[in-house]
Amino acid sequence: MNKWQKRNRPFRLERRFEFETYNETREFLERLGDYTEAAKRFPDISFGRTYVNITLRPEDDDEGVELNEADYQFAAEIDGLLS
Amino acid sequence: MNKWQKRNRPFRLERRFEFETYNETREFLERLGDYTEAAKRFPDISFGRTYVNITLRPEDDDEGVELNEADYQFAAEIDGLLS
Repeated sequence: MNKWQKRNRPFRLERRFEFETYNETREFLERLGDYTEAAKRFPDISFGRTYVNITLRPEDDDEGVELNEADYQFAAEIDGLLS
Repeated sequence: MNKWQKRNRPFRLERRFEFETYNETREFLERLGDYTEAAKRFPDISFGRTYVNITLRPEDDDEGVELNEADYQFAAEIDGLLS
């Protein structure tokens, strides 16, 4: 499984998570929903039966703002939801 | 709020749902998850804090297959989850 990819224009982090079953996908989405709600931060998420794609833009999402340490930390917390 | 839009290449139905709050968005996603699981049919879904986009391809998703009555019925059932 790949890791977070940094993209430009606009700056963002993207990661695709793949799962064996819909149940695993949905469990991950539930944890993700709880976590983003607690963090009051809502990345763009797309999903199907066995995948979830997350696009994370800088917290201060003005045009051209770079990703910072807090953004990478947020991404790492999402990774932690996998276990 | 717009209705389902039919698109081609590949044939699909798309609709964007917008909500006032994250809580409303999440409640809709929960109902959608329950419904798609019961129907054993998993459209592509993307969402953020206050929107949900759904892309529904024909059930028999071979290249070039047209949408049929069952697909429109499935879309209508999703609309019913709003109430």
